[in-house]
Formats: sequence, C-alpha cells, structure tokens
Amino acid sequence: MLKLYIGNKNYSSWSMRPWVLLRQAGIDFEEVQLRFDSFSGDSDFKRRLGGIAPAGKVPVLTDGNFAVWDTLAIAEYLAEKFPDRQLWPQGVKARARARSICAEMHSGFGALRGACGMNIEARLPEVGAIVWRDNAGVRADVGRLVAMWQELLAEHGGPMLFGDFGIADAYFTPVMMRFRTYALPAPAAVTAWMDRVCALPGVRAWIDAALAEHDFIDFEEPYRLTR
Amino acid sequence: MLKLYIGNKNYSSWSMRPWVLLRQAGIDFEEVQLRFDSFSGDSDFKRRLGGIAPAGKVPVLTDGNFAVWDTLAIAEYLAEKFPDRQLWPQGVKARARARSICAEMHSGFGALRGACGMNIEARLPEVGAIVWRDNAGVRADVGRLVAMWQELLAEHGGPMLFGDFGIADAYFTPVMMRFRTYALPAPAAVTAWMDRVCALPGVRAWIDAALAEHDFIDFEEPYRLTR
Ligand SMILES: N[C@@H](CCC(=O)N[C@@H](CS)C(=O)NCC(=O)O)C(=O)O
Ligand SMILES: N[C@@H](CCC(=O)N[C@@H](CS)C(=O)NCC(=O)O)C(=O)O
Repeated sequence: MLKLYIGNKNYSSWSMRPWVLLRQAGIDFEEVQLRFDSFSGDSDFKRRLGGIAPAGKVPVLTDGNFAVWDTLAIAEYLAEKFPDRQLWPQGVKARARARSICAEMHSGFGALRGACGMNIEARLPEVGAIVWRDNAGVRADVGRLVAMWQELLAEHGGPMLFGDFGIADAYFTPVMMRFRTYALPAPAAVTAWMDRVCALPGVRAWIDAALAEHDFIDFEEPYRLTR
Repeated sequence: MLKLYIGNKNYSSWSMRPWVLLRQAGIDFEEVQLRFDSFSGDSDFKRRLGGIAPAGKVPVLTDGNFAVWDTLAIAEYLAEKFPDRQLWPQGVKARARARSICAEMHSGFGALRGACGMNIEARLPEVGAIVWRDNAGVRADVGRLVAMWQELLAEHGGPMLFGDFGIADAYFTPVMMRFRTYALPAPAAVTAWMDRVCALPGVRAWIDAALAEHDFIDFEEPYRLTR
C-alpha cells in the first residue's frame, strides 16, 4: 500500500503536488498528515518524520517499507510504477519539455515563493498589490510562469498544459493557489486553465480539506495575526 | 548533434553536472560556452541565450533544434536517449533513491550554496572555517550530505554512490568542489569517494579547463578582490 506523508494542507505547497497527482490519477493511497508545529529538531513534526524521511521534509511516499522523498522523485517513481496512467506526456519531446518546466519550478521562482507563501484559505489582495509594485523579482517570476503556460496551452490546445492532466499541471497547483490568494495578474487563457485545474475533483478535494483546517501557524503567516 | 550550452567552468555549478555526465559517459556533444558577463537583461550572456533557453539560464541541451533545459530534465533526457549507458541505477529502488537525492540537491542545500559558491580555482580555507563556525545552516547541510553519501557508499560498496558512475555522482560534483575550496570537513570514506570522482577523466577534464580560465567575475567573488 502506498502511503503519502504530508504537512498542513493549507500551507504545505510541496505536499500538495504528489497528493493531487495521486488523487486525480485515481491511484489508491493512504494519507498521513504531520501537522507543522515547528521545523526545529525537537518538534513533533521532525520526531514523527525521523526514521522515515532522511531529508527531514514532507512529502515522503512509502511503498511498503521503501521510502521515496522529494516531490520530483516521487513523481518519477509513480510514473514508472503506473505507466498506464500516463503521468508524463507520451511523446519524447513533450515529456522532455514537461520535465524541463517541472525541474525549473523545483529549483526556481524563489522571489515568488519567498514573498507569497502558499496559504489557500487566506485572501490577501492588498499584500499582493504591494508585492507586485515593489518586488521586481516577483514580477519577473510571474512573467516567466505566464509566458510558459500560455505557450503550452496554445501549442497543445488545452485543456491541460500538455493536453491531458499530468505531473506538469499538478506541479503548478501550489503556484495557482498563490495567484488566487495574492490576486496576481494573469491573462484570460491562463486564468481559464487555472479554473479548470482547480475544478478537477482531485484538486478540489485538497482545496476543500485545506479550507476545513483551523490551524494558524505563525511562521507561515508573515502577513496576518489571526485568520 | 547534441550541443550543451554552459557558463564559466570555474563558477557555473549547474553547468558542470550535465557536462561531466556527458563526457564521463562517453556521449558525443559540442560545447557552447557563454561567459558570465552579468545576468541582467541586456547582458551578452542573456542575449546569446535568448531564443534558445526560455528560462534564461544555463545549462541548456539542444538536440537538433529541440531544447531541453534545467539540469535534472537534461539528465532524464539523456538517460532515456542512451539507455545502454545506464545513467540511472538499473534497480527500481536504487533508481528511486538516486532520484530522491538528486531532487533533494536540486532544490536544497541553500545555506551551503549561498555561503560557499562554487569557485574551483580558489583556495579559501579561512573563509570556510569562519562559515563553519558561524553558520548553523551550512553545518546542517554538510551533515546531511555526509550522512547521505556515507550510507550509500556503505550500502553499495563503492566505488561510486550506486556502484558505477552515474547521474547521482555527477550531481554532487559541484558540491565536492566546495568541500575543496572551503576545506569543509568530511570523513575518510567520503573524501576517498570525492577523490575517486575527481580523478575520473570526465571530471578531471572540467576541473583542468576551469583552472585554465582567467576570468574574475566580481559577482561570483564575495571573498576576493583578485585571483
Ligand atoms: N524539495 C523538497 C522540498 C520539501 C519541503 O521543503 N517541504 C517542507 C514543507 S512544504 C518541509 O517539510 N519543511 C521542513 C523543513 O524545512 O525542515 C520536495 O520537493 O519535496
Ligand atoms: N535549476 C537550474 C538552475 C540553472 C542556473 O541557475 N544557472 C545559472 C548559472 S550556474 C544561470 O544561468 N543564472 C542566470 C540567471 O540566474 O539569470 C538548472 O538546474 O539548470
């Protein structure tokens, strides 16, 4: 049985990707949620992860007693284990392109990630407007994302980035959440794709669960004192 | 014909990975070097990359007129295109583990990367000693790397992380350069593996070329005024 260890659904952007991928692809798994109390060595979070995740982070996927960690490695593991689900595009070039943008996401967009943390439940359009006005790095990150998405949607004709839903769409769901929370600008074709992704049952299920959480984690809330 | 676009060999940690992978695996390719003049929009570097690399970064691999960017996507593309070179380990579990540590490297170790930029030619043991004394994040990053490498070397018995040379070893070559430049501490079994990797002809060739460069790029040199 596959088990996916995740953090708080409202905040844990990395956890969201493999969870919505598994769920939307219809792959059976058990969820183990580790609440973010803190990331210090003696936190409950780290204690419960110890022995499972050598890197000390979520997400972690276990398959029996074998652990795979890090979102991208989890995605590759699932793509190999469930070839019939076609989690990557089938064509060599489309697959290479999907991997290029996922790897770009994996190590990039630091300005956007730093200034606009994922917080699905929050609505912070004013924070977004100030960040947009003052932070050139965020504007550059958003510009690059929008250009990449527009090109792929035009090239493959939608409804998803490479036609059907796959790892690439899942990879950008946490960024979509940020566009919503901080009301970041996007052209209509991109907004329509985001709406389609958010309406997928697997993505909707994560969002609903995030909204139902009541945790308020100070270190994930640079812009609020309470909900 | 494969073409790999790279930056300065002395400084460009990302470029080093696919270059040593290609070279050590004996895959034929042409190198296109784009000197780092600056990373601003009107730099020569960005101008020459324009039209080739949508993300505006090196490395980029082109195969005819098709471009793959981002180190990890390049590695996967090569692994698919040259299955006989066994760039990933052959077993499902070993392959998943190799992908986990490469993806972990891809988005992690920010403290070490930030404080100890790759600079193959430089010898900065005093800087390293101060960083080691003052920067808990660097100590944690080094601790995690050393633990990961020790475990894999013990498990697979060497000479490389997963037995034979592959993507995982290539992925850590820029970090090895940092251990040398900043004289960071490592146990004997790890140092011996680093020495073996650095002695591989494909890795040696990169190091020699880096040492032969004469560029001094201010924004890559927080600790020196001249060579
Ligand atoms: N590159 C990793 C990043 C994982 C990550 O940073 N996860 C966060 C939660 S969203 C975490 O567990 N942080 C704990 C820590 O940094 O100590 C991945 O893709 O899985
Ligand atoms: N995640 C990317 C990172 C590439 C990267 O940051 N490359 C640096 C040179 S080592 C670069 O081109 N920087 C230009 C810039 O940041 O504008 C990869 O793996 O290829």
